[in-house]
Amino acid sequence: MRLAELSDTTGVAVATLKYYLREGLLHPGRPVSRTQSDYDEAHVERVRLVRALSEVGGLSLARIGRVLDVITSPGQDWITVLETAQRSLVKPRRDAPDGEVADQLRGGRASAWVTARGWNVDPADPFIDDLDRAWAACDDVGLGLGEERMNAYADHVEGVAEIDVATVPADPEGAIRQVILGTVLVDPVLAALRRLAQQHVSMVRAAQR
Amino acid sequence: MRLAELSDTTGVAVATLKYYLREGLLHPGRPVSRTQSDYDEAHVERVRLVRALSEVGGLSLARIGRVLDVITSPGQDWITVLETAQRSLVKPRRDAPDGEVADQLRGGRASAWVTARGWNVDPADPFIDDLDRAWAACDDVGLGLGEERMNAYADHVEGVAEIDVATVPADPEGAIRQVILGTVLVDPVLAALRRLAQQHVSMVRAAQR
Repeated sequence: MRLAELSDTTGVAVATLKYYLREGLLHPGRPVSRTQSDYDEAHVERVRLVRALSEVGGLSLARIGRVLDVITSPGQDWITVLETAQRSLVKPRRDAPDGEVADQLRGGRASAWVTARGWNVDPADPFIDDLDRAWAACDDVGLGLGEERMNAYADHVEGVAEIDVATVPADPEGAIRQVILGTVLVDPVLAALRRLAQQHVSMVRAAQR
Repeated sequence: MRLAELSDTTGVAVATLKYYLREGLLHPGRPVSRTQSDYDEAHVERVRLVRALSEVGGLSLARIGRVLDVITSPGQDWITVLETAQRSLVKPRRDAPDGEVADQLRGGRASAWVTARGWNVDPADPFIDDLDRAWAACDDVGLGLGEERMNAYADHVEGVAEIDVATVPADPEGAIRQVILGTVLVDPVLAALRRLAQQHVSMVRAAQR
């Protein structure tokens, strides 16, 4: 198909597709004349992937580029590639003016909580830092998120993770794809579900009064 | 306390505090001379709130302004204010080049699923649209998120929502604060928990093989 047809099929403007091509987020088509190229189903799939990561996942184009590198890299060592996939999702640290506070947090309460919980994770995992910062932010505004409530959340999140892991396919490339996309694209699904479930639970409680 | 001390206490740079003051995100201090003002615990609390919403919640300063308006508005009608609080969290729609596709999605599969689930929510709730878009994005990239898996996720998310709702205080202002902050600031906590739980579950499964 030509670029105009790729645009019709994916609902992405031609100018945006040209931008993806220039930035290397979309691989070139097969040249059929000096000014035209031919695109196929692989291009349609790639455009949908870039758009989903951008619009739903909220990733910058630079981070999408890194994610695509991981997804499309020839699978060598299975564990290494999976680690790289997870690492590619870690948000870059914002330039906080309070560098010392951030350092104090590191390896703090979240790390102790994860150990007490008995979770088998790398103690240096950057997501422990993410948890620590998010937890500290709740404390800062007096949200009262204690260890008891954290454990109650974790009980339900383990159920979510069981579903996540059970649906990962056996082949390495498919697994990487699933890990990255499942993390980035299912987060917004869970966030929307949480808001709707809050409303439902509130209505049920109000009716019971 | 003076501005420098407010900066030390909160770990936020003086220049940033001056910016918050100019933008109206931080209320003025009590003037003590022509060039100096006095700040108190309410200012410390507000700075921590703005920083948490910005750095952890990822909200823009414009959206933080709207959230603060809702949190600090005198509580008139309880339900109206709670609705306003939830609405202030709905992400502004991105200018998608594919406006027609977005319209087709509206009231689509997510709406039917919510009804089948028996959730007692407003059929026009914007979070149903959010769910529809997030679900369609998963389909677009072939993630295979069917209704069975959506229901399995929803079972666990209802448990999360029960915890959310149970911890909302009885007074209206406290409740609004809890709804907004609990939504914005606990999302990153749950996201970090999900990634760590995925690792834990994977390790447990690998050990069982």
